[in-house]
This record gives sequence, structure tokens and C-alpha cells, in this order.
Amino acid sequence: MIKSTDFLILYTTKNGRTGKMVDPIMQGLVGGGVTVDSFSVEEIKWDQMLTAKGIIVGTPVRFGNIDWKIKRFFDIRPEVISVSSPLAGKIGGAFTGGDIPGSGAELTLLSMLHILLNHGMIIQGNSESAHYGPISLKDTSDEDMMNICNIWGLHWANLYHNLFSS
Amino acid sequence: MIKSTDFLILYTTKNGRTGKMVDPIMQGLVGGGVTVDSFSVEEIKWDQMLTAKGIIVGTPVRFGNIDWKIKRFFDIRPEVISVSSPLAGKIGGAFTGGDIPGSGAELTLLSMLHILLNHGMIIQGNSESAHYGPISLKDTSDEDMMNICNIWGLHWANLYHNLFSS
Amino acid sequence: MIKSTDFLILYTTKNGRTGKMVDPIMQGLVGGGVTVDSFSVEEIKWDQMLTAKGIIVGTPVRFGNIDWKIKRFFDIRPEVISVSSPLAGKIGGAFTGGDIPGSGAELTLLSMLHILLNHGMIIQGNSESAHYGPISLKDTSDEDMMNICNIWGLHWANLYHNLFSS
Amino acid sequence: MIKSTDFLILYTTKNGRTGKMVDPIMQGLVGGGVTVDSFSVEEIKWDQMLTAKGIIVGTPVRFGNIDWKIKRFFDIRPEVISVSSPLAGKIGGAFTGGDIPGSGAELTLLSMLHILLNHGMIIQGNSESAHYGPISLKDTSDEDMMNICNIWGLHWANLYHNLFSS
Repeated sequence: MIKSTDFLILYTTKNGRTGKMVDPIMQGLVGGGVTVDSFSVEEIKWDQMLTAKGIIVGTPVRFGNIDWKIKRFFDIRPEVISVSSPLAGKIGGAFTGGDIPGSGAELTLLSMLHILLNHGMIIQGNSESAHYGPISLKDTSDEDMMNICNIWGLHWANLYHNLFSS
Repeated sequence: MIKSTDFLILYTTKNGRTGKMVDPIMQGLVGGGVTVDSFSVEEIKWDQMLTAKGIIVGTPVRFGNIDWKIKRFFDIRPEVISVSSPLAGKIGGAFTGGDIPGSGAELTLLSMLHILLNHGMIIQGNSESAHYGPISLKDTSDEDMMNICNIWGLHWANLYHNLFSS
Repeated sequence: MIKSTDFLILYTTKNGRTGKMVDPIMQGLVGGGVTVDSFSVEEIKWDQMLTAKGIIVGTPVRFGNIDWKIKRFFDIRPEVISVSSPLAGKIGGAFTGGDIPGSGAELTLLSMLHILLNHGMIIQGNSESAHYGPISLKDTSDEDMMNICNIWGLHWANLYHNLFSS
Repeated sequence: MIKSTDFLILYTTKNGRTGKMVDPIMQGLVGGGVTVDSFSVEEIKWDQMLTAKGIIVGTPVRFGNIDWKIKRFFDIRPEVISVSSPLAGKIGGAFTGGDIPGSGAELTLLSMLHILLNHGMIIQGNSESAHYGPISLKDTSDEDMMNICNIWGLHWANLYHNLFSS
């Protein structure tokens, strides 16, 4: 039986930089009062996407765009998902690990957010931090990385309360 | 005295195509049970932006990006707005009138949405219609234009109820 | 033995709309005085990419981004390609078949062009037609589709002569 | 009388970070064997744009998009420029000074490149450095900033020789 959580993190990693962001993001979410579970793109199943109210996708920077395995997951929706817009109305977010400034981290984040908008999901930017989602580059210190992941976890939890708590 | 409405439409138009979208968007919003007022970029004042809960920006396609007058309005924030993130947590949206497919209408919409995300605003895509906001091109019939504007007005009104109605 | 051509078209198609663009693009290129061959993403091998001077990528619109099979091809470069920038200095281009205006065709084209820029490739826009590459939507007539594909084939051939003819 | 140069740099700056990039970019261009002149957006005239073979635009990050004064310059073309595509076939490029990773520097660069593509200009990415143009962030050292600007100046000069030298 699937344990349903408020948020689901779906990710893949290349050299480990994106993978290291999962835990501090989860801490931020839990600190914000929501439940969360995380799955690699190899583990996740589409029906798990249906129960969560928020889906946060982590991908390494791959030529200024998301990893092909993440793209495959979104492109191939199993027949069993009969609803036409299974993700509409859910919260969407993205995070990425990259190399230097200008190596494509912002483009990668935005490519992912555009896919989530395409699905009818709800995205909130952040005016006080990295604007589109947490980014960790080669020269980002562990402390800075954890800080920005915590901030964004809390940010997403707050959006959850605004949308789904009565 | 400023009459405060739930939504505010801020727009400019070049040949009239974007301007024609204002009324059917307002109809969609009002039909969705919210109040709305519209202002041209020459009329609007920054303090009016603070009272509305949702801000929808209309711009013609100008080289695959928003009109410079819209950009100037967002770039020059009067000193009197002392809050660092005056638009954070509000609903954001965009619409545009363009020429042919591939003439930059989607890029223009997304450029505007990226600015709104930058401000910490909340954006929802639409899985069943034009995904990022209403677009009217040279060959779009009046009926199709009105239909898509109505759909998006209602879409934004529904997001308002999800976020701000208790 | 691989027959080397000036241009190589690499594509995939979903419902046939993108696939139908291959022939008229090839006609435009040949009319412009260059040689070209086309391969589906299942057929193409990375070493074929090395000999061509121009690479044009065709992808259906898939959630405002390129098809996962195209992404996989670019993400997984065989070890045997030892050069660090095997595509740098070549001409790059993209074309796409989509649905309605606002369904993601421009975003898809630009996502592909960003990948090609990432590789150090050379891109030229078109000020007189679809600006970023040929687009065919659901309501595009066959005549308009063929016309825009011819124009862009010629456009890419002209860039070839500017860059590589002495 | 206007002294015609191979390249023209057009820029504006907000806190000085973008402005500091002009000299090292010019050094890179001159080192690559081309001539260049630079103008602020307040000084530049549209007819100067017509004589140069390459136009490089510098803008601060302004909400993930270019500065409104740069946008105004491109939006308002004087009547006297009667050619429909006055910039088609020229080299285009962009550079930007920003804040932290994720504060919009890549989006700003790409917004500018999309405008240049719209005009039919020729863009080349860089596979070995910042991929879309030089970026200087708050934590970028002067040495790294100068290095990346030199690299890109040389990159643009090489593209000039490929396109325009016989």
C-alpha cells in the first residue's frame, strides 16, 4: 500500500550534486509542517504522482535542459492514468545541481517549470532568494546549499498551507 | 480614493490586438466571481498594484519579449514602495497579441511570467487550453479569441478562490 | 561507408506532423545548393554527427520541450567521441510540429536551440518568417507548412555558404 | 563622421558590474584581430548599428530580463531605417552582470539573444565556457570576470573571421 504524503520529490542525479539537495529540501518541507517522501526517477511510479498535492523535481543540468530520464518519465504516461490532466492544481517546483554560472542551471530549472505549467500546476517564485528554485553550483558551499534548500522547502510548505489548508 | 478590486489588469497594445483581449478576460474573471479593473500602462500607478490580489499583464509581442513600456513600469519602482517584495504571494498572469506561429508570442508570455515569478508571485498553467496564458494571433478568429480569454479569466478566478477564500 | 553530406536532419515524430516537414526542408536545402541526408532518432549514430557541417533537429512538441528520445541522444554521447566539443562551429537548427498557438511550439524550438548553443553551434534567426525555425501547427495548411519549410531550408543553406564556402 | 568598426558594443549598467565587463570584452575582440567601439544605450544611434558587422549587448539583470532602456532602444526604430531587416546576417551577442546564481542572469542573456535571433542575427554558443555569453555575478572575482570576458571577445572575433573574412 502506498503511504500518501503531501509532497513528493522526484529526482535523478549525475555526479551527486543534485542528489545532495534532497535531504535539506525535505528538512525545509517538514519544518514547514508538511509530509514528504522522495523517489529516484527509476523508482517512481505514475500513480504515486496522483496522491501527492505537491511535486518537486530535481534534475542535474544537462545541456541547459532536464535529464532525459526525467523527460521520459513525463512523456510516457501509462494508459492506466485515464484523467486528462492528472497533475492540474497541484504545486510544482524544481531544483538543480550545476557547474559554473552560465552553464545552464537557470535554463534547466525553467525548462522543468514550463513542463509543470503545461500540466496545469501551480508555481510560486521567490523574490528574496534564488528566484525559480534552489540551485547548487560547483563553487556553492555546503552551508549555502543547505540554506537555500531549507528556504525553498519552507517556501513550498507555505504555499501548500495557502492552497490546501482550510 | 482607489477602489480596490480582487484583480487588476495592466496592459498596453500596439495595433489593437492585445487591447481587444481585455474585455473578454474581464468577463471571464467576473463570471468566476471576482472583481477586476483594468489600466493601461500609462495610467497605472504602483500603489494600485499593492491592493489587488491578482495582477494580469497584457503586452503585444515585441521581438519575442514584452513591450518596453511594461518593462519600464516594472524596472522603476517608486521609492515610496518600501516593502522589499510588494507583489509576493499575489496571483500573476499574462496575455499577448501576436502575428504568426513562431513570431514570438509564447516567448513574450514566458518573459512576462518569469518577471512575475521573480517577484514571488503565484502562476498556474492550464493543461486544457493555451498552456501559459491567452494568445491571439493574426489568424485567430474573434470567436476563438473571446473563448480563450473567457477560459483564462475563469481559470484565474478559480485560483483566486483556492488561495484567498476561506 | 558513411556518405558524408553538408547537412544532416535528425528527427522524431509523434503523430506525423513533424515527420511531414522533413521533405520540404530537404527541398529547401537542396535548392540552396547543399547536400543533406535525414535520419530518425532511432537510426542516427553519433559518429554521423561529426562529418556534417550543419545539424537540423526535428521534434514534436512534448510539454513545451523536446521529445525524450532526442534528449537521450544528446545526453548519452558514446565514449568513442573523444573530442570535448564535437559539434562546436557547426550550424544548428530546429523544427517542430505542434497543436494550437500557446501549446508550446516556440518553447520546444528554443529548448532545442539552447542545447545546440550549449554545444558551441551557430544559430541564425530569421527576421522575415517564423523567427526561430519552421513550425507547423494543427491548423497550418499543407501549403503554408511547405512554404515555411522551404524558406528555412534555403536560409540554412545560405548560412552554410557564408560560413564554409571560400 | 561615424568611424565604422567591425563590432559595436551597446550597453547599460546599474551598479557598475555590467559596465566593468566592457573593457575586457573589447580586449578580447581586439586581441582576436577585429575593431570595436562601445556606446552606452543613451549615446548610441540606430544608424551606427547598420555599419557594424557584429553587435554585442550588455545589460544588467533586471527581473530575469533585459533593462527597459535596452528594450526601448530595440522597440523604437526610427523611420529613417527603411530596410525591413537592418540587423539580419550580423553577429549578435550578449553579456550581463548579476547577483547570485538563480537571480536571473541566464534568463537575461537568453532574453537578449532571442531578440537578436528575431532580427535574423547569427549567434554562436560556447561549449567550453559560460555557454551563452559572459556572466559576472556578485561573487565572481575580477580575475575570473576578466578571463571570461577575454574568452568571449576572442570567440566573437573568431566567428567574425569565419563569416566575413575571405
